[in-house]
Amino acid sequence: MKFNKVLEGIQTYEAGKPIELVVREFGIAPENVVKLASNENPIGTSPKVAEVIRANADKAHLYPDDSMFELKAALSGKFDVGDENIIIGAGSDQVLEFISRALLDEKSSVLMSAVTFAMYEIYAKQMGAKIVRTASWEHRYDEFMEAYHMHKPKIIYICTPNNPTGDATSREEVLEIIEEVGNDTLIVVDGAYMEYASAKDDKYAITPKELLGYENVIYLGTFSKAYGLGGMRVGYGIAQPELIKALYKMRPPFNISTLSLAAAIEAAKDEAFVAKSIALHQEQIKRYEDFAKEHGFEYIDSYTNFITYLFGDTLDSTEVSDALLRRGVIIRNLASYGMNGVRITIGTAAQNDVLFKHFSEVIS
Amino acid sequence: MKFNKVLEGIQTYEAGKPIELVVREFGIAPENVVKLASNENPIGTSPKVAEVIRANADKAHLYPDDSMFELKAALSGKFDVGDENIIIGAGSDQVLEFISRALLDEKSSVLMSAVTFAMYEIYAKQMGAKIVRTASWEHRYDEFMEAYHMHKPKIIYICTPNNPTGDATSREEVLEIIEEVGNDTLIVVDGAYMEYASAKDDKYAITPKELLGYENVIYLGTFSKAYGLGGMRVGYGIAQPELIKALYKMRPPFNISTLSLAAAIEAAKDEAFVAKSIALHQEQIKRYEDFAKEHGFEYIDSYTNFITYLFGDTLDSTEVSDALLRRGVIIRNLASYGMNGVRITIGTAAQNDVLFKHFSEVIS
Repeated sequence: MKFNKVLEGIQTYEAGKPIELVVREFGIAPENVVKLASNENPIGTSPKVAEVIRANADKAHLYPDDSMFELKAALSGKFDVGDENIIIGAGSDQVLEFISRALLDEKSSVLMSAVTFAMYEIYAKQMGAKIVRTASWEHRYDEFMEAYHMHKPKIIYICTPNNPTGDATSREEVLEIIEEVGNDTLIVVDGAYMEYASAKDDKYAITPKELLGYENVIYLGTFSKAYGLGGMRVGYGIAQPELIKALYKMRPPFNISTLSLAAAIEAAKDEAFVAKSIALHQEQIKRYEDFAKEHGFEYIDSYTNFITYLFGDTLDSTEVSDALLRRGVIIRNLASYGMNGVRITIGTAAQNDVLFKHFSEVIS
Repeated sequence: MKFNKVLEGIQTYEAGKPIELVVREFGIAPENVVKLASNENPIGTSPKVAEVIRANADKAHLYPDDSMFELKAALSGKFDVGDENIIIGAGSDQVLEFISRALLDEKSSVLMSAVTFAMYEIYAKQMGAKIVRTASWEHRYDEFMEAYHMHKPKIIYICTPNNPTGDATSREEVLEIIEEVGNDTLIVVDGAYMEYASAKDDKYAITPKELLGYENVIYLGTFSKAYGLGGMRVGYGIAQPELIKALYKMRPPFNISTLSLAAAIEAAKDEAFVAKSIALHQEQIKRYEDFAKEHGFEYIDSYTNFITYLFGDTLDSTEVSDALLRRGVIIRNLASYGMNGVRITIGTAAQNDVLFKHFSEVIS
């Protein structure tokens, strides 16, 4: 059989290693594995959400309300936008997929920073589009504008805060980019970690509402991080109705499971859980900054629930990650992103204790 | 913004109406709504599966094992195939989407029967492919072969048993079609309702294993029907490794939620639940056949968990469906498929009692 040519250029995304794999490969008991690789919420699932899941467990045979009436109502209340401005995806990933499929073809290009969320490239390549990256992993206005004017990309991705680096782009800089870009280019403002940035510094807070004035901008958010629902796959896009309607044409019916929908509706109301997650995070991330200083390597000032260590020529990120993995500590090696560094999710105090202990031993 | 041209030809899929909508629109209490529109399992969620969901409710923050090791092991055991023959989708729908995206473009065509599962057309149109249909809603060998030789379609869909008609194509006929078709065309054998057909008549039973001998055939199955997990969105495709690898390139990471994965692993083991579902079904469907005979309209002999009534010129399917909806009974009007008929899921004895009562009143 002859497959579409675009398949030749696609490498399958390598997800963070699951606990099950470490258990199977290294024979470590599940309770001794510490996973700080996938930016999951270390305080777990909100007890209120877990309760809703248990209460709905016997509805697994029923298809969900495909209009997602209640979830949209919760989001439109939270962000002060209309139902018609919202599309729900199986993670904000899936909204990225809808965007790619609605806009790209083999003649188009997309623009992103040198190191950013891997799925932008993967979904664009699935459509055969050309990938253009700026020189820096930070989102620099001048680099973006130069590349924009040269390539006229169909989509510009602004991941703020950025993953897997943890840095953020200020609201002012994002708006400057938006103002300069013409309406033929869609600007994706991916705020998957926005709750952490907003809590840290107002200057980096961007709301979907303020972007709704632009017909060529979409804001993406997710329940996977601060809301603690990484395993449930629920995210959203917020934009003007014309764009939402186009993306809807690429949405498969029932793209959110019945339990994911119920969980997200509850999570959207549980702001106390988000506040608690952020408070723990802000307290624990200081230990990671201190650890880096103590051991003499650099870190990127983080606006997310993870921290990125840069080893320069002191350590090798692959060696460090592999050594930790054999000890049952899973972190994210950034070698595949072209960086000699690692990304570590800020865990609970106890998880971080384990990480620091093993990390110290591994590099000593 | 300029969207891809294919969007112009796409109509958004209209899902069966959810109970929530009837509650909202007609002010009927949820406990009084009977939904027999989406072929959900009337005996509900397996108690063993519900228990697993409850036990995993506090893992909603953790991403699933993206290798789906355990679920693949369960399926490879059940069907006597290898792990490398399996791809898991968010419903078998999503496997259809991967197939479409891996194979189709604006120059290709796809072949299906006159009335069949709506998503074949929708996913093909998303790729700009041309839709070719045979004259009959049954899968007739001669019609398929004539259209195949004329159009050389990239994909042929054989939905057996067929949805929304309920008829099935015998194993012998399916193999005849497969034998005649060249390797440049993929044949999709969609067995979403196969458990019901196999139980009714051996002649219609097709196993993934026997199709593995053909490099251009993929078998699709689902946990949504006999296994009672419609709301969890888990299905699978089984084929030779080269095809599976190609489809994997179109698979987004974490396409199954943590709870859906846990639920499907348990459901795959719970054959007693499937047997119980089928036994209830076989007992209750007789009542639907008798009801049709009693009221003088035709039905299609069903190999699925639903029955299709054909009204000819006696009744109007839209009037019947709307009248039932206002009484809180949701069935599927087939007018949008070009048929003056309705599709009704075989419910529990109590649900069927309600349906027959209202149906008799509505048409009297």
